[in-house]
Amino acid sequence: MTTNEQALLLHEQWKGKLETVSKTKINTREDLALAYTPGVAEPCKKIAENKEDVYKYTIKSNTIAVVSDGSAVLGLGNIGAHAALPVMEGKAVLFKEFGGVNAFPICLDTQDTDEIVKAVIQLAPAFGGINLEDISAPRCFEIEERLKASLDIPVFHDDQHGTAIVVLAAIINSLRITGKKKEECRIVINGSGAAGIAITKLLLRYGFRHLMLCDSQGIVSSKSPRLNDIKKEMLKITNLEDKTGTLADALVSADIFIGVSAPNVVTSEMVKTMNTDPILFAMANPVPEILPDVAKAAGARIVGTGRSDFPNQINNVVAFPGIFKGALEGRAKQITEEMKLAAAEALASLVTDEQLNEDFIMPEAFDPRVAEAVSEAVKAHIQ
Amino acid sequence: MTTNEQALLLHEQWKGKLETVSKTKINTREDLALAYTPGVAEPCKKIAENKEDVYKYTIKSNTIAVVSDGSAVLGLGNIGAHAALPVMEGKAVLFKEFGGVNAFPICLDTQDTDEIVKAVIQLAPAFGGINLEDISAPRCFEIEERLKASLDIPVFHDDQHGTAIVVLAAIINSLRITGKKKEECRIVINGSGAAGIAITKLLLRYGFRHLMLCDSQGIVSSKSPRLNDIKKEMLKITNLEDKTGTLADALVSADIFIGVSAPNVVTSEMVKTMNTDPILFAMANPVPEILPDVAKAAGARIVGTGRSDFPNQINNVVAFPGIFKGALEGRAKQITEEMKLAAAEALASLVTDEQLNEDFIMPEAFDPRVAEAVSEAVKAHIQ
Repeated sequence: MTTNEQALLLHEQWKGKLETVSKTKINTREDLALAYTPGVAEPCKKIAENKEDVYKYTIKSNTIAVVSDGSAVLGLGNIGAHAALPVMEGKAVLFKEFGGVNAFPICLDTQDTDEIVKAVIQLAPAFGGINLEDISAPRCFEIEERLKASLDIPVFHDDQHGTAIVVLAAIINSLRITGKKKEECRIVINGSGAAGIAITKLLLRYGFRHLMLCDSQGIVSSKSPRLNDIKKEMLKITNLEDKTGTLADALVSADIFIGVSAPNVVTSEMVKTMNTDPILFAMANPVPEILPDVAKAAGARIVGTGRSDFPNQINNVVAFPGIFKGALEGRAKQITEEMKLAAAEALASLVTDEQLNEDFIMPEAFDPRVAEAVSEAVKAHIQ
Repeated sequence: MTTNEQALLLHEQWKGKLETVSKTKINTREDLALAYTPGVAEPCKKIAENKEDVYKYTIKSNTIAVVSDGSAVLGLGNIGAHAALPVMEGKAVLFKEFGGVNAFPICLDTQDTDEIVKAVIQLAPAFGGINLEDISAPRCFEIEERLKASLDIPVFHDDQHGTAIVVLAAIINSLRITGKKKEECRIVINGSGAAGIAITKLLLRYGFRHLMLCDSQGIVSSKSPRLNDIKKEMLKITNLEDKTGTLADALVSADIFIGVSAPNVVTSEMVKTMNTDPILFAMANPVPEILPDVAKAAGARIVGTGRSDFPNQINNVVAFPGIFKGALEGRAKQITEEMKLAAAEALASLVTDEQLNEDFIMPEAFDPRVAEAVSEAVKAHIQ
């Protein structure tokens, strides 16, 4: 049986990967009187008097919503709220298994930006955080910004920021190996969706200076067709020389390629035109922008992908559980840029100088220190 | 320490009575590939092809939402979405502990009918049923009706229908004791909120003919002040002689009193004017409309309350877990009147002729047969 066949069979046996479990048994009338009426009225009254007490007495202290509209699910695209549910359950499972954070999937049966924002604000009381997931660009940017402005709990679009954090961690460790300087590195990001935009922003924030964004039409420049608002915004901070051309043109003399785009769009020839010690993170799933052995044969020094069957998996699972663990434990009201940078540095630093090499730049997903390190990094930056 | 003090302390220790737990451990890369990417794409694709498969592969098959806007919480009134959360968590706990049904609290930060309806429709994909809770009348009627019309999953306002089911069960067994005939019984229902209206409707459906509804102004008649739409509707099916007067007037020659109203509104004198073998269900919480010993001293044959420290507790917990257990197992699209009647009869029949007496008319909440019997009754009436 293939993995896919086995996965389908298991999903049918599980009938849902998540269950809600009571922390207290209800075996006697006394149990009932303590967990339900009349005793439950006491915490209710406290919260009615002081809303902040909701963190003291309820699940809000350690529960987040995994919210999606099913518009951009994995590589499957716009499959809708119902078909997105197995992914959101899976994400909720990972929050608990890796970060100890309770999470519940909320699949919204609307793809209207205003309606999504309104629904999430309305259902927020039970949740201590909102993890947005698999919502298509550019709506995801507006939805996240508006929710951040309206809610006093952290809102985090993992496809953007989780990806940006792990990519930055991978780059930090790649620079440790190659000795490249961040101020001098030329970086090409292929894919101008949610992940590409967030990676661009975080890398600039970290101190990289020379970034070029590409989309399916080539280099994003003032001459690009179909420039949307977010790409126009990106032109103020990337491609400052306003170069035009193809992805191949962009890669000439580049130090780092970051792919969040499509299978097989990078060739051996392109890698050969890059600067010395080229670094490539080819994260298209399941087929990367270039296969690691092809890239290596063409001279790549470090190659990472989204896959677990190649070295250097760039996987959000090392970031998002710890991000929310820390945010909830420290009662952060937002996930700030400083927290994301600190999380990336914490992840990178888990790989010691002795361990670090071209085929081992990221901590393992199952390393128990990971969520703790990210969580502590987040908590250290709560204001 | 009092129960209330202990309850507050426990709620602080629990920090939420509910947790989300994965049914499968994620210890290896293979586990990750099966429960999350890439394997999870398989059930997603199946559901995208055939929406009904969402029941085959996800939590929708056995998970409901406990939805409240915090407008009518216990006896505490309109305390809002945050302060309602301990109750909704408690309700979710009872669904799981008594019925094996996964349940998650959704406390909506709006009390606008249109917005509540819209939000619940939008968040419905992950849920196999909606239990409405502690939403004030008359909005609760419209919200339930509109959700039933819009959704293809069962929607059940427990304050209405759960209460009606357990009251009917209590009455059925009271008639077994007293030998009164349903066609002849005169019933007075004091309280014309969500519970009173639902009890009225279900008793008429069961075959009772002589019902009179009272509110804080006395008998609801065509001359009543402040007649809202629902009371006008009730006048078509209750108080057909259009009597006017006080609650005391209503109780003269009545066989059964049902109180879902306020403390101490029924006196000994009123009980003495009732028909022979008077039956009283005084369910105001925590202080009933009349205390059992006072009612008994005035000649009452059977007295029930909402409290666990008196005989004959009339408690929804014997109904709602089994209702949703059966509805989910049988994939009911609605909870019909037939299901509610069958559930009441099933509950009543759990008390054998040998057990049945004036102080034992209802099965115990902790009787393991209860949820099963109610569930089977519901399933037997799925069309």
